[in-house]
Amino acid sequence: METDSLYLRLAAHYRRAILGGVLAPGDRLPSVRSLMQSHHVSLSTAVQACRRLEEEGLVEARPRSGYFVLRPRRPVLAPVREPDVSRTPDPAQYVGIHDRVSAFIARCEAMGSGSNFAMAAPPAEFFPVEALKQAMMRALRRHPEMLCSRVPPQGHPALRSVLARRALEIGVQAHPDEVIVTHGCIEALNLALRAVARPGDTIAVESPTYFGLLQVLESLGMRALEVPTRPQHGMSVDALDLALQAYPDIRAVVTIPNHHNPLGCVMPDAEKARLVALCERRGVALIEDDTYGALGDAGPPPALKAWDTTGNVIYCASMHKTLAPGMRLGWMLGGRWSRRIEMLKFAQTRPNEPLAQAAVADYMGSKSYDRHLARLRVRVRNQREEMADAIARHFPEGTRLNAPSGGMLLWVELPAGTSGTGVFERALRDGVRVAPGAMFSNSDRYDHFLRVSCAEDYTAATARAVRLLADAVAAEVPRTARAAA
Amino acid sequence: METDSLYLRLAAHYRRAILGGVLAPGDRLPSVRSLMQSHHVSLSTAVQACRRLEEEGLVEARPRSGYFVLRPRRPVLAPVREPDVSRTPDPAQYVGIHDRVSAFIARCEAMGSGSNFAMAAPPAEFFPVEALKQAMMRALRRHPEMLCSRVPPQGHPALRSVLARRALEIGVQAHPDEVIVTHGCIEALNLALRAVARPGDTIAVESPTYFGLLQVLESLGMRALEVPTRPQHGMSVDALDLALQAYPDIRAVVTIPNHHNPLGCVMPDAEKARLVALCERRGVALIEDDTYGALGDAGPPPALKAWDTTGNVIYCASMHKTLAPGMRLGWMLGGRWSRRIEMLKFAQTRPNEPLAQAAVADYMGSKSYDRHLARLRVRVRNQREEMADAIARHFPEGTRLNAPSGGMLLWVELPAGTSGTGVFERALRDGVRVAPGAMFSNSDRYDHFLRVSCAEDYTAATARAVRLLADAVAAEVPRTARAAA
Repeated sequence: METDSLYLRLAAHYRRAILGGVLAPGDRLPSVRSLMQSHHVSLSTAVQACRRLEEEGLVEARPRSGYFVLRPRRPVLAPVREPDVSRTPDPAQYVGIHDRVSAFIARCEAMGSGSNFAMAAPPAEFFPVEALKQAMMRALRRHPEMLCSRVPPQGHPALRSVLARRALEIGVQAHPDEVIVTHGCIEALNLALRAVARPGDTIAVESPTYFGLLQVLESLGMRALEVPTRPQHGMSVDALDLALQAYPDIRAVVTIPNHHNPLGCVMPDAEKARLVALCERRGVALIEDDTYGALGDAGPPPALKAWDTTGNVIYCASMHKTLAPGMRLGWMLGGRWSRRIEMLKFAQTRPNEPLAQAAVADYMGSKSYDRHLARLRVRVRNQREEMADAIARHFPEGTRLNAPSGGMLLWVELPAGTSGTGVFERALRDGVRVAPGAMFSNSDRYDHFLRVSCAEDYTAATARAVRLLADAVAAEVPRTARAAA
Repeated sequence: METDSLYLRLAAHYRRAILGGVLAPGDRLPSVRSLMQSHHVSLSTAVQACRRLEEEGLVEARPRSGYFVLRPRRPVLAPVREPDVSRTPDPAQYVGIHDRVSAFIARCEAMGSGSNFAMAAPPAEFFPVEALKQAMMRALRRHPEMLCSRVPPQGHPALRSVLARRALEIGVQAHPDEVIVTHGCIEALNLALRAVARPGDTIAVESPTYFGLLQVLESLGMRALEVPTRPQHGMSVDALDLALQAYPDIRAVVTIPNHHNPLGCVMPDAEKARLVALCERRGVALIEDDTYGALGDAGPPPALKAWDTTGNVIYCASMHKTLAPGMRLGWMLGGRWSRRIEMLKFAQTRPNEPLAQAAVADYMGSKSYDRHLARLRVRVRNQREEMADAIARHFPEGTRLNAPSGGMLLWVELPAGTSGTGVFERALRDGVRVAPGAMFSNSDRYDHFLRVSCAEDYTAATARAVRLLADAVAAEVPRTARAAA
């Protein structure tokens, strides 16, 4: 009688073939009869091996056809480690995050071509270029005088209406007059922060968080307090509560609740409700950056603003990731700070120019926009899953990864002691760009992380670049970690 | 023999007819023969009266045709009073100038139609709408992907090149890479101030100055120190020197050296050189707002930046007044603060969207732009002179006015004790909008002033509106002033 280990060895053989890409999703596994013949095993062993692979989610049985390789739906890597939510880090001020980030960005930009896993922006062909061009042409033909007339205050009425209507999908009731159109989400964040806080004030943010937010805080002379954040559930409300008690000078919380950058996670509804209630109770403004929400695989998760009954939440969003990176349009709902935000917007850049707004309102009000979003979500999801598979296949043992349910970002935890910045340097030499974890914190807490952006179609070139990246990671894994693995 | 007073009385009769508009520029004065018959005077008296009017610049003799009414080329009103340049006012911080100005603006905007002497922006038909529309269409056809691609850093290369080339005309040598494209001059001013100063710092400005600048300072939490400013020569460099000695915490000077808003004056070249040298010597940044320079009757006066050899001058300008108010494009040269300004621009709004820049570069690089500017200057000059004439004719005695050599603004000093805000209220009820002096200072120093904008074609409706405005002024002149007049 054959031992148990025989069917396990057989399963392991085919597992490697699947994870290594020798057998691709959709491929048929050799039939049970072929397995018996090729490997000289019994029917029982062949069947047990197939069932084992089926349990692991690597193949599926199709009646009367055999076993077929599946696209792995669950991460085959362990999830990213949870933080200690009882620690409350010190606020950091002007630690040079801007220069650090700028240096990374400049070095990436200096490399004109090659695979780009650093940039969280899909190429133009992912967006409805032709339809937007036509919408711009129509707006120009109808109202060319817009180019040379005074601009309407706070935004073009048609766009404000469309945005208020779209906000219903994320659970937010807003009158068009409350919508303030901005130069991207970044201006919205600036205005929100300037409305509720002053230089020297402390602002609670996720840890890790979007480097652009850290740059904004540094440029405004505000201090970032990085709140422990759970990689699959977002900012820890309990840790925030502790921080608010420890630091009474925290003026605001800035959070990315939906498809967080860089974590990719969505804060569960119950946590969203708790977070909104906590900030309200403590009298701390809650600023929400919803840049990625619309890229949820199953549509946009609800905004924090949906739980806001008192105007304590400032909602900020943009069209960069979903529609038109080159038009630089964002928008916000100012809650109880609306009037002050309108004043600051007027004093900072005046209202936005109307032409682009008219065109985008035209397109966003149409069914074409919904069809585009649906296609974009599928495309981004496929890229993300291909990338996750490839990382699972090629990155060294000890790598950890979550499986976000939307967005284009993967937050990769490298084996302990591996320098993400070292990986960045090595990969750059090989023509591959990636964002090292050091960009996402004022501390060095995430230096053994990478943010891998899946913004481009997954092609043979992408596959080659992932392997180069995996080689760079492997070369940076410290010997001790390699020995332990 | 007739007395001297007779020809003087006859001249006064026709002077009134001319200043009152009964005889318009270009009209023929009655012939000497007609004057003799109508007024029963001698040939000598009729000729003396005509010569007197000729000496006053009211009529001109054309050989064998008689005397014709001239457009008054010299102001018939006394110039605005000079300030006491030895006084150094206290810095003012957050005194609510923003709310005050916003209230004026909102009340003007609530009135949809009627003559608008409050707004310093010509209507769309003054600008090359069709040519800009075509340039936008070309840019869209050539590079529609710009709408959905990442934006180039600090500005579109073609626009940066055109602006650097255009800067030569105002005496400025700048490499295209130094040009930073912004959302209007207002963002440029924000970035310049944020680069060189912090909240709580004191900034020296002209007195009076553009209300938008006072709003920016208030929104940034900076203190404005209003430096005595000569209505025909701009900021007093001597007064500034005193102020810099009295207040060592002054971090920057912001000035509008060319066709100042609201004064209309141009700082003489020698004063520009002194100002640049003083700021350099005292280690105080000099920020220049050149919004109106290009509207000089004889072309743009040189920029302060032309005298800058050390990078201590930050140059800010826009295309709102000269090309396309609705495109909201501005630009700046950051001098020695360029890198910090680039950082702040990135953190505040990211680089501007490229489409509008490509189109404007296309147009500004063409001869059409020069032709448009030449036409615009003539049109604005005519409007300004018509308005000055009308004010001279209709405003009560004691009114004072300068005659700027460019731009679209007139700074009108009303008889002592007349409330400009009272005039604003009365005129608004009659459907006429004007900017009261109170908008241009944190003090009440200019409450007996009006800024009259000549941004619209001077039509019969304009003439009626000026008379309504004159009536409002007359009604606000205090009895004591009326008795004295």
